Amino acid sequence: MKENDFVKEITNIDEDFARWYTDIVIKAELADYTDTKGCIAIRPYGYAIWENIQNYADKLFKKTGVKNTYFPVLIPESLLEKEKDHVEGFAPEVAWVTEAGGEKLEEKLCIRPTSETIFTTMYAKWLNSWRDLPFVYNQWCSVLRWEKETRPFLRSREFLWQEGHTIHETEQEARERTLKMFDIYVDVAENFLAMPVIRGRKTETEKFAGADETYTIEVMTYDGKALQSGTSHYFGQNFTKAFDVTYQNREGKKEYPYQTSWGISTRLIGAIIMAHGDNRGLKLPPKVAPIQAVIVPIAIHKENVKEKAQELYNMLKDKYRMEIDLREQVSPGYKFNYWEMKGVPIRIEIGPRDIENGECIIVRRDTSEKITVSLNELENKIKELLDKIHINMFNTCKKRMEDKTMVAHNLDEFQEIMSKEQGFIKAMWCGSSECEAKIKELTYATSRCIPFEQEHISDTCVCCGKKADKMVIWGRQY
Amino acid sequence: MKENDFVKEITNIDEDFARWYTDIVIKAELADYTDTKGCIAIRPYGYAIWENIQNYADKLFKKTGVKNTYFPVLIPESLLEKEKDHVEGFAPEVAWVTEAGGEKLEEKLCIRPTSETIFTTMYAKWLNSWRDLPFVYNQWCSVLRWEKETRPFLRSREFLWQEGHTIHETEQEARERTLKMFDIYVDVAENFLAMPVIRGRKTETEKFAGADETYTIEVMTYDGKALQSGTSHYFGQNFTKAFDVTYQNREGKKEYPYQTSWGISTRLIGAIIMAHGDNRGLKLPPKVAPIQAVIVPIAIHKENVKEKAQELYNMLKDKYRMEIDLREQVSPGYKFNYWEMKGVPIRIEIGPRDIENGECIIVRRDTSEKITVSLNELENKIKELLDKIHINMFNTCKKRMEDKTMVAHNLDEFQEIMSKEQGFIKAMWCGSSECEAKIKELTYATSRCIPFEQEHISDTCVCCGKKADKMVIWGRQY
Repeated sequence: MKENDFVKEITNIDEDFARWYTDIVIKAELADYTDTKGCIAIRPYGYAIWENIQNYADKLFKKTGVKNTYFPVLIPESLLEKEKDHVEGFAPEVAWVTEAGGEKLEEKLCIRPTSETIFTTMYAKWLNSWRDLPFVYNQWCSVLRWEKETRPFLRSREFLWQEGHTIHETEQEARERTLKMFDIYVDVAENFLAMPVIRGRKTETEKFAGADETYTIEVMTYDGKALQSGTSHYFGQNFTKAFDVTYQNREGKKEYPYQTSWGISTRLIGAIIMAHGDNRGLKLPPKVAPIQAVIVPIAIHKENVKEKAQELYNMLKDKYRMEIDLREQVSPGYKFNYWEMKGVPIRIEIGPRDIENGECIIVRRDTSEKITVSLNELENKIKELLDKIHINMFNTCKKRMEDKTMVAHNLDEFQEIMSKEQGFIKAMWCGSSECEAKIKELTYATSRCIPFEQEHISDTCVCCGKKADKMVIWGRQY
Repeated sequence: MKENDFVKEITNIDEDFARWYTDIVIKAELADYTDTKGCIAIRPYGYAIWENIQNYADKLFKKTGVKNTYFPVLIPESLLEKEKDHVEGFAPEVAWVTEAGGEKLEEKLCIRPTSETIFTTMYAKWLNSWRDLPFVYNQWCSVLRWEKETRPFLRSREFLWQEGHTIHETEQEARERTLKMFDIYVDVAENFLAMPVIRGRKTETEKFAGADETYTIEVMTYDGKALQSGTSHYFGQNFTKAFDVTYQNREGKKEYPYQTSWGISTRLIGAIIMAHGDNRGLKLPPKVAPIQAVIVPIAIHKENVKEKAQELYNMLKDKYRMEIDLREQVSPGYKFNYWEMKGVPIRIEIGPRDIENGECIIVRRDTSEKITVSLNELENKIKELLDKIHINMFNTCKKRMEDKTMVAHNLDEFQEIMSKEQGFIKAMWCGSSECEAKIKELTYATSRCIPFEQEHISDTCVCCGKKADKMVIWGRQY
């Protein structure tokens, strides 16, 4: 195989971003299509990314008192139907089990598209007194939503996620929990995955089916589109009333608790690919990368090279997530391309002359910079570079988001911008869903969120021209 | 609530063991029944046990090169049907999705009862050369088997497990992998969960549908029954041939790889309850216990008691999994019973006089022994006691298994033993499935395994009297 075959096999990122994306998913061996239409198999390299995200997030969850649980994958139809908005939102896209154990079922069961209904049912059973509150439970599991058009990680029919479901004594406590988990999602995206996010609240049209409020983190992709990458919902008493969840309050009276739910999913892997990747392939943020540095020996058959490379590997393998590429049937150039395509943040090259000089060469995946490093300083240098790479990758995305965020004062400007280049648009909005629908119809852009950081652009709605006091971020979504 | 209410609420273990078991599951808040018939919700205390098992096993897996993945929960009917024995074994107990996204499906999809079929299909896609081998993949997920009679953890329709699926270049390597994973299961059961096991091979009748060989660990419950608690299967080329998984071998010729699969599940939680529990409730082995020691302050309103208890908690909480019970609405006696019922290995009592003396009292859950310990020595003493408790719990089970294992030379002896007391029977077997069937019909005992540790009891089959050279362990199963 030629040295540049990898790169040639990947569609040019600026020519066809969607194809580039699926090329990366397949070639970097993150996932693959299966015989179950619309469902992927997540391969070890992709799953290791998910495990790292899980470990990071789960620790943060537990620090705030979250407890993990597991609830059934199957939900009876009658439960799904108890909350009106919820069933309207989810029933059209669920999969139904109608036969089991050789018999037709009396009541059909859906595979969970989300588990508010079954958590709330059990909370009704377990809750007695205000002393029992809060319930702050979570589960890591898979859910199924029968999407018409699918895309690996971004819109798979089945995907992995965590769903937290909590109930609280007071509205204030529930609202605080909603935002506390939201803050953790921001932390995961920005501090762990090097992806700057827009923080905001969804409009009525875009919020979760059955929620009072939905908070979202929105990532901008390489091509300027929006990816909803984590949501946290405040439900008020919508579900606890529909499911008759009550308790004796401090005054001995019957009361309904206040509820939240929140989730992040394997869609984050899609976001990493789309936010960070380039024409050489995947580019993984150092903290989540399954392999943080790979050692490639040069002139592997020369005396002492293999041994020295192995020695370095042994020295580093307990400090960093390391790989060593000792394949003899492919050239160093092939290996360079291979590990770049796999997105490994740091490559360490070591050949006969380097060994003589007590040095090696480090190559950064993010900048392609080559750095000669003394072997004595290697261990510390890797740490330093991984930190730098994280910051640089974050800043690169940040700058892109700033460059590709425009301001529109009226519909003409809005359409003009959207027809030229993909990106976010900041524009005022009156609050009506008709204006949202019109903008979507004309530009395919949807309201991403009402960001926490508001700016005063004008006093009038970008669409209808009526009085407006909310700035909305708009964009086309994946 | 009275001090002994907990104990009273639990059925006597010697009167009705099955009811005692479900009482423990519910009262210790390990799991609960749901509106989805035959499926349980695993509550935080139960799930924490599973997480501890996962962490322990997953580390051991990874040390041997296992990589985690995630494959679809839905398997098309046509895939399930490809291996004859497999489909015969599993088809009768699967659940079928027949509608999704508002439409009837062209091909129905089953919820995975196990994933040999879909792993093998993807292996066919990914495997090219001998250089790609082995694939040593695993997934932690839930599976569904539509059992007629269910019991929480032991026989839930849905249960959590891990399923490893590997393919190898040679028969020898595959056989070694089968036994390597088997050894890890022995490690999990004995060293982590303090449950001695019988190691052995299943007979033709009892082995996994589609496997050449099935290895099993069998646990004996409090009432002398058998619990299959982990299995490892060698498949030969059965599935790789049925699914046409081929590769170019070292000579450039087309070859089929050799396959294994292996799994442990949340059934282990049921095994823990049934192997260790007693009339005071659950009794958790120290290494898996979500709470290893609980601090109960005595005379909590007396000066300095609460503060001192809190101080101890703070000192110990990073060394052990600690809990402190500061509830003011219930008595110390209530708390003792509560935490005993929850199976916490160590209770630490501290009251005004103890504080005066610079001491506290430790009570062991396994022996009820009370030990006065100087506060200076507390930290080390806990470590020492947790180790001792583990050993004692293991030995208690071991002794029971020895006491309740009898030898039978003929069918009369076999029936006689089984009619008196529940337990294991060691007996010679000729190898015919007719004899197995007859023994099952007459005594409800099944062949648990052909143990690795063989003994020569006689030369003739316990059932038919013909020549026999295998000793089998028999028992009634849960």
